[in-house]
Amino acid sequence: MSGYPYPLLKPPSFAWDRSAAPAEPKVNEWIQTLEVNSSVSTDWSGYDAAILGVPLSRSSISASAASENPDAMRRAWKYFTTYNLDHDVDLRDLRVVDLGDVRQHVTDIAQCHRNIREAMLQMRTHHPQVLPLAMGGDHSITAMLIKGYKDAHPTERVGILQLDTHFDLRDLADNGPSNGTPIRNLIESETIRATDVHNIGLHGFFNARSLKTYADETGVNYTTLRNARKKGVAQTVQEALEQLGQQVDTIYLTVDMDVLDSSYGPGVPASTPGGMQSDELFEAVHIAGLFPKVKAMDLVCLDPFKDRGEATVKTAVHVMLSFLTGYSQRIQEK
Amino acid sequence: MSGYPYPLLKPPSFAWDRSAAPAEPKVNEWIQTLEVNSSVSTDWSGYDAAILGVPLSRSSISASAASENPDAMRRAWKYFTTYNLDHDVDLRDLRVVDLGDVRQHVTDIAQCHRNIREAMLQMRTHHPQVLPLAMGGDHSITAMLIKGYKDAHPTERVGILQLDTHFDLRDLADNGPSNGTPIRNLIESETIRATDVHNIGLHGFFNARSLKTYADETGVNYTTLRNARKKGVAQTVQEALEQLGQQVDTIYLTVDMDVLDSSYGPGVPASTPGGMQSDELFEAVHIAGLFPKVKAMDLVCLDPFKDRGEATVKTAVHVMLSFLTGYSQRIQEK
Amino acid sequence: MSGYPYPLLKPPSFAWDRSAAPAEPKVNEWIQTLEVNSSVSTDWSGYDAAILGVPLSRSSISASAASENPDAMRRAWKYFTTYNLDHDVDLRDLRVVDLGDVRQHVTDIAQCHRNIREAMLQMRTHHPQVLPLAMGGDHSITAMLIKGYKDAHPTERVGILQLDTHFDLRDLADNGPSNGTPIRNLIESETIRATDVHNIGLHGFFNARSLKTYADETGVNYTTLRNARKKGVAQTVQEALEQLGQQVDTIYLTVDMDVLDSSYGPGVPASTPGGMQSDELFEAVHIAGLFPKVKAMDLVCLDPFKDRGEATVKTAVHVMLSFLTGYSQRIQEK
Amino acid sequence: MSGYPYPLLKPPSFAWDRSAAPAEPKVNEWIQTLEVNSSVSTDWSGYDAAILGVPLSRSSISASAASENPDAMRRAWKYFTTYNLDHDVDLRDLRVVDLGDVRQHVTDIAQCHRNIREAMLQMRTHHPQVLPLAMGGDHSITAMLIKGYKDAHPTERVGILQLDTHFDLRDLADNGPSNGTPIRNLIESETIRATDVHNIGLHGFFNARSLKTYADETGVNYTTLRNARKKGVAQTVQEALEQLGQQVDTIYLTVDMDVLDSSYGPGVPASTPGGMQSDELFEAVHIAGLFPKVKAMDLVCLDPFKDRGEATVKTAVHVMLSFLTGYSQRIQEK
Amino acid sequence: MSGYPYPLLKPPSFAWDRSAAPAEPKVNEWIQTLEVNSSVSTDWSGYDAAILGVPLSRSSISASAASENPDAMRRAWKYFTTYNLDHDVDLRDLRVVDLGDVRQHVTDIAQCHRNIREAMLQMRTHHPQVLPLAMGGDHSITAMLIKGYKDAHPTERVGILQLDTHFDLRDLADNGPSNGTPIRNLIESETIRATDVHNIGLHGFFNARSLKTYADETGVNYTTLRNARKKGVAQTVQEALEQLGQQVDTIYLTVDMDVLDSSYGPGVPASTPGGMQSDELFEAVHIAGLFPKVKAMDLVCLDPFKDRGEATVKTAVHVMLSFLTGYSQRIQEK
Amino acid sequence: MSGYPYPLLKPPSFAWDRSAAPAEPKVNEWIQTLEVNSSVSTDWSGYDAAILGVPLSRSSISASAASENPDAMRRAWKYFTTYNLDHDVDLRDLRVVDLGDVRQHVTDIAQCHRNIREAMLQMRTHHPQVLPLAMGGDHSITAMLIKGYKDAHPTERVGILQLDTHFDLRDLADNGPSNGTPIRNLIESETIRATDVHNIGLHGFFNARSLKTYADETGVNYTTLRNARKKGVAQTVQEALEQLGQQVDTIYLTVDMDVLDSSYGPGVPASTPGGMQSDELFEAVHIAGLFPKVKAMDLVCLDPFKDRGEATVKTAVHVMLSFLTGYSQRIQEK
Repeated sequence: MSGYPYPLLKPPSFAWDRSAAPAEPKVNEWIQTLEVNSSVSTDWSGYDAAILGVPLSRSSISASAASENPDAMRRAWKYFTTYNLDHDVDLRDLRVVDLGDVRQHVTDIAQCHRNIREAMLQMRTHHPQVLPLAMGGDHSITAMLIKGYKDAHPTERVGILQLDTHFDLRDLADNGPSNGTPIRNLIESETIRATDVHNIGLHGFFNARSLKTYADETGVNYTTLRNARKKGVAQTVQEALEQLGQQVDTIYLTVDMDVLDSSYGPGVPASTPGGMQSDELFEAVHIAGLFPKVKAMDLVCLDPFKDRGEATVKTAVHVMLSFLTGYSQRIQEK
Repeated sequence: MSGYPYPLLKPPSFAWDRSAAPAEPKVNEWIQTLEVNSSVSTDWSGYDAAILGVPLSRSSISASAASENPDAMRRAWKYFTTYNLDHDVDLRDLRVVDLGDVRQHVTDIAQCHRNIREAMLQMRTHHPQVLPLAMGGDHSITAMLIKGYKDAHPTERVGILQLDTHFDLRDLADNGPSNGTPIRNLIESETIRATDVHNIGLHGFFNARSLKTYADETGVNYTTLRNARKKGVAQTVQEALEQLGQQVDTIYLTVDMDVLDSSYGPGVPASTPGGMQSDELFEAVHIAGLFPKVKAMDLVCLDPFKDRGEATVKTAVHVMLSFLTGYSQRIQEK
Repeated sequence: MSGYPYPLLKPPSFAWDRSAAPAEPKVNEWIQTLEVNSSVSTDWSGYDAAILGVPLSRSSISASAASENPDAMRRAWKYFTTYNLDHDVDLRDLRVVDLGDVRQHVTDIAQCHRNIREAMLQMRTHHPQVLPLAMGGDHSITAMLIKGYKDAHPTERVGILQLDTHFDLRDLADNGPSNGTPIRNLIESETIRATDVHNIGLHGFFNARSLKTYADETGVNYTTLRNARKKGVAQTVQEALEQLGQQVDTIYLTVDMDVLDSSYGPGVPASTPGGMQSDELFEAVHIAGLFPKVKAMDLVCLDPFKDRGEATVKTAVHVMLSFLTGYSQRIQEK
Repeated sequence: MSGYPYPLLKPPSFAWDRSAAPAEPKVNEWIQTLEVNSSVSTDWSGYDAAILGVPLSRSSISASAASENPDAMRRAWKYFTTYNLDHDVDLRDLRVVDLGDVRQHVTDIAQCHRNIREAMLQMRTHHPQVLPLAMGGDHSITAMLIKGYKDAHPTERVGILQLDTHFDLRDLADNGPSNGTPIRNLIESETIRATDVHNIGLHGFFNARSLKTYADETGVNYTTLRNARKKGVAQTVQEALEQLGQQVDTIYLTVDMDVLDSSYGPGVPASTPGGMQSDELFEAVHIAGLFPKVKAMDLVCLDPFKDRGEATVKTAVHVMLSFLTGYSQRIQEK
Repeated sequence: MSGYPYPLLKPPSFAWDRSAAPAEPKVNEWIQTLEVNSSVSTDWSGYDAAILGVPLSRSSISASAASENPDAMRRAWKYFTTYNLDHDVDLRDLRVVDLGDVRQHVTDIAQCHRNIREAMLQMRTHHPQVLPLAMGGDHSITAMLIKGYKDAHPTERVGILQLDTHFDLRDLADNGPSNGTPIRNLIESETIRATDVHNIGLHGFFNARSLKTYADETGVNYTTLRNARKKGVAQTVQEALEQLGQQVDTIYLTVDMDVLDSSYGPGVPASTPGGMQSDELFEAVHIAGLFPKVKAMDLVCLDPFKDRGEATVKTAVHVMLSFLTGYSQRIQEK
Repeated sequence: MSGYPYPLLKPPSFAWDRSAAPAEPKVNEWIQTLEVNSSVSTDWSGYDAAILGVPLSRSSISASAASENPDAMRRAWKYFTTYNLDHDVDLRDLRVVDLGDVRQHVTDIAQCHRNIREAMLQMRTHHPQVLPLAMGGDHSITAMLIKGYKDAHPTERVGILQLDTHFDLRDLADNGPSNGTPIRNLIESETIRATDVHNIGLHGFFNARSLKTYADETGVNYTTLRNARKKGVAQTVQEALEQLGQQVDTIYLTVDMDVLDSSYGPGVPASTPGGMQSDELFEAVHIAGLFPKVKAMDLVCLDPFKDRGEATVKTAVHVMLSFLTGYSQRIQEK
């Protein structure tokens, strides 16, 4: 092909040269992809975080295409630089790898769930120093991811900071491990203790009274968005982290994008009026990123088919990057 | 039909068994519907509130399908539980009935208006203990509903708490009793006194200067949204209610959904930039629901054909339920 | 409730008085609903056809909200009269009942499939004279419905007239009984013979070559849309019916709405350019309705969340009514 | 303003210089507007056709913003040249004036109807040589326009060529002169004879059986779209014109845009599957434009708020221009 | 034309009688248009402000139809009265003229830029007392407009108040004077000094780190939105104006609409999560309008093809009117 | 990385393993991408066709994001198998490479045009046996591509088969080499002869009369869509090819997607009512693919930002694949 006019051409946008990212990369040029056909082992020693797509939404109570979210978020990386001006942090100093997606089965949801749990187990077993960042998928995956985490670290006490409009404490007896059940699933399977959960963002008419009763009786912590705002959302998150931090070894951050107000999250089927604003959410996850015991994160329940343009998908990417900003600051402080 | 596999089937969503609502109903399972062909009288003694659809928007100055809103709101009830977590109130303790829609004529708007007035009169005459909740329709209906109210209670002095971007004080001589005129209609017909109106939410470039002059000269009270926010919207509403409460026997709450900012109310044709946020509106109507003299409510000017998904319709349902939350707390305190 | 102003009010649109349909009903006023709480058996002797909602789309290969289609079609009934002007047939002379939806499980797709099969079995067992009309859901349901049919009529030889862009002959070993597999599922389970299937509407680049090979080797009949148009779609359908009619006792009509061109079926996720026009499809199903051995029908793979307004949902209702027009003419001829 | 850089500027698009249209104008540059404040009389002697906006849709049975169509069509003129390549006709050789809109009242529909009738009367009285082209509005306006025409020409026998999915023969006793009634209105008021109407385009389940009975009993002529296509739509229209031409002095062409298939007319609220294609409609109106006795035209029931982009509005403009193409050829032949 | 029924007709909406605006005009009835064919000079002595459309977006890095914004804003004027209730100011007391659009070339962007610069030069030369208000177009135009301003007033020191999510400090060597470069363009051409720029609204991951370095090294002032909110956006703007006011003779206000949060600015291709709210922006520009040295304004990067309805276009008009409110108050104080 | 759970994971969709495409690939798995960083020459000897993205639409008369089309088409490849059932052709037997995009400049359109011309020249120089398939971009690129072709093959006489609603014969003197000028550009630069062009698909009011005059005077061949349908579109295309084939050495096929009816091409800004149907277009390009002298193809003027979902983009891919089907059959016949 000598002589072919390379200088005039550039490759298709999805086939960029990852080994030659520019000095100031876009997020899509910065995040590495595993070499699929590599005959030799990739050296993982330098990675700080690993992104895992979990494209499962068959387990959602209402129809959802949240399965399309991992790829939608990947496509939206190109809209972001790695540099966070608000905190003067350049994420480029982190090494982040995109592992691809956990394989899913079309008609066997239990198999999908087993794959998700196993993927987290193996990742934690082989590369425990790497922070997992899961892009869902619906909220049922959180139960599987945390179970996989516990499989790998059976002696760690794990707590949850949950940003959510819903308790997710529905009874599994009704319809199995759907997206309404992950926190209850984890409590009843004794993966975590109810008192090691703190949910911030609940509001309005979107939870049955019995779920609040269950939370109260088992000791699940929660702060409604209305009460969080009285104190300040950031302050509420900080205090929740500190309280959990005194109890547990590891805090898992789970962000249900339905915590957003429906004007800020048009792509979230279950988003509701009266929810959180984007900037409140960015502050909340940034604080979580800074907190030493936060060691994993997921983000769920965004259906890109319902989005207005890519507005909510971009917000989701910003959430992930805001969390990584805090994480980057945390690491650098060490 | 013995032997037919009922256990495997469930009825279509609109034909649920209202006599067997689950322990934790959705709003659509909780609100009762009148038995249309009942040969015996329904016992009204236990109802706390009655919902009335008023599907009229031919009287709107600009083209509007607000006539479709009552059914749109009914279809959206299924997204809400009866339990308000913010206030720990379960609306299930209220008994609410949906009376259906006031009959409308296709080409005779005056007849439509007479029907609306008469419906309110008859309801107040026969069941004066039941709180009316009207789902419009355009804002012209408010004049008719309040006139019907006065027909039933001629000696009551009635005031209005209006949440609106507009004064609605246009001259009836121009184009008859359109949606730009209801407050002036009520003042000029001496149904209410100008000084018994308080409008909160006005802002920007959406009212002619002469309407402000009219308001000032007649004594209509108003607080712009900008000024309300300086004091706090909730506090402003509380003070307006207390002032009105000293003057009148009954306060009628009318919510023009165009008070919302256009990012929060995409389904409101006249929504404008710079308007109210959803959570401010929920607080405002909740406070009104708590206030003893507030005895009727309507909600107008939402065009579901313009909505983004059902976002604004859900917000409207949340407004109605937030008002009922306050009302429920008020009743229980008694 | 004597004295209440009924003349001024009408019930909400979903609560019409089914016992008092007007002389010229809309389709929603004509189709009967089972009395859910009836303590006595309903007399089925007079029904001609029964509609069954099958709201399952978790089994779809690509994300789909076809589960929402049964209710979407029901809501669109109100746009149609019962009178087909093209054929001077009034469907009102048929008695049609809406049985509601087959119960689905959120996370156990196999259980969903068992319920669907069992529902058809019981219906055929108890009311074999009633024509079943199933509203999907995704195409996986067809395998279950036909298996249920065969369970009830084990000695009948059943054939299939399929209107579809795809063969639906994928291997079940890959991902279980998804929407890509129903015809192969039925062949491999020996529910039907490959040679008793005729697929009309295939075109373009939407089937793997191996599926054509499978069809050719097993003897599945098919006519591409391009070839069907050369002869005339109506004539092609007529000949396919006659050929099948010589082989089998019963022909099951399955309409995958993705047979439509994407300009005619914006609400079908898998609709493609180069597909069928609406009027061609109406002609095709009308001819099938006329054909004596056609004894069941389903319609699948329409996702109302993707529709433009309700355009495709209305087309689906028109398909069902066009089929019933032929069926009505067939019955009357007897 | 001497010295101001005109060469660098051009006026806003709505303020073009009508006296200096380019050699090859766009339709918006070709159609003249009346000088509103002209102190002297405009010379009408040279005009061939006059466009009248009739922005009324309060009289529509279902909610419609067809009132916005006249301005929407005007805004879309800029997309069209005056030259019809299919027939090698340049409309520029016609002189066409846009008279603006008939004044409407917000809450008095009867007054709106009187204004429309009076506007046609006065136009026919003062400028009988000018062809009227009305842009609706809903179909109720056709009754008023034809009554106004008859007021001006009481001895002319007027017939109607109607391109429509519906009969528009509903009983006025039900809901007054709505958009479901214009043809019956004209028959019962003895403005026209039933046998002088020919409706082409009816299809499917969109008319009650009683309306067909009424048509049959009174002698209204009609050809379903299905039957028209068997003979050819163009041929059907030609024959209908010739038949009417033998009976009447004047044929009024009324195009209800709901005659279009919903894939071709997304902006028509009542468009249905199975309707006409755009090119069939263009042929039909072109033939009508050629026919000597066709002396007026209207186009109704397009709601630009429901359009996809401006696709249907552009189609409506193309309908008007196709009719004018035939009219231009007719005039030139003289 | 004597005798023609004018009382029944009104002209098309774009052809209103500008010499006879009503006592309470809408904004479209208030803003004057130049008489295009006037044979005599227009008297400019009374104008306070002049609107200039700059329909160029070929120079945008990403595909944009911001070229359509000037006409979109003009069409949206009709939604606004001239009366600002928040400040009790009626803009009618200002005389504002719409000059139309700067001519653009289809394929020669440099020519477009020259025309823009020249238009501002000529306007400032001939009518220096008239405030220019430019409606873009993309942000590349700001460099040209300010260069034209400097051409006319070479001895004035000009500073910039920029409300923007981006620095717009990209290197021109990369892709010429695109919309990513205007501020750098002005600095490097020594039209302005870096230290005379203050940018408010930057946030998140939308600027490369090198641009911050460039700003820091050259002395460009900036306040992130996050920091602005800590002090109050209004207070931040006030202080920035006062600081600039001590340095320069003239402050040019440039509003990049991408400063808005994407929920408030759906029509801005580059709007991002975490941006400004509409009411914050209205306050900011109102304060700028009040400030004596602010003598020109532009508003850029709004693509009406991406808007939700006209929501963002209306917000843009509100921005312009809010600025004029301050300007009106400033003038009256004199 | 030994031990990492590959079996559970799959790479992101854009990072598939191209060296291991499945036995039955999707189009995205079949088309090869150049190895960007390959240090050795790629062996081109086996390629049959090469795809070139030409992401330029700054040169479009009206605002267009056709620059986004190449990537949009690439993203849509995954919806297609390589097997064309209509013709029993598997494209997998062709070797096709995606060369990526021609580099574009943001503000220098002439440079963009030079790059496009040069890219075609170099490709034809080094790999003359490979069929070029260009994905535009707007129609201005066709002039550049054909000039580049002629630069490489100066002695070949090149003709054009154009499928288009427009002549594209505008005068370059007006606005440079925009998308309205390519054919005239080629004629006036004597790259091709006017009589070697045949345009099929013209219709309606979308061309100025002077352009027809120009075509007639210079001898450009054209067949309106209306006339083509009388003979059959396929037959018309065949005859045009045969006529051109007698005159020229090479026929270049250019498909302006605006030839589609606006119901079939919602993503084409300039699509019009009365245009071609998708299946007519597929037939036309298939026939062109079969014709021996057709040696290059482009497809232009599709703006994916305006598309309804990806409907038009899928149609464009189908056009390209239909052309390749014919080409594959042509090659195999040799």
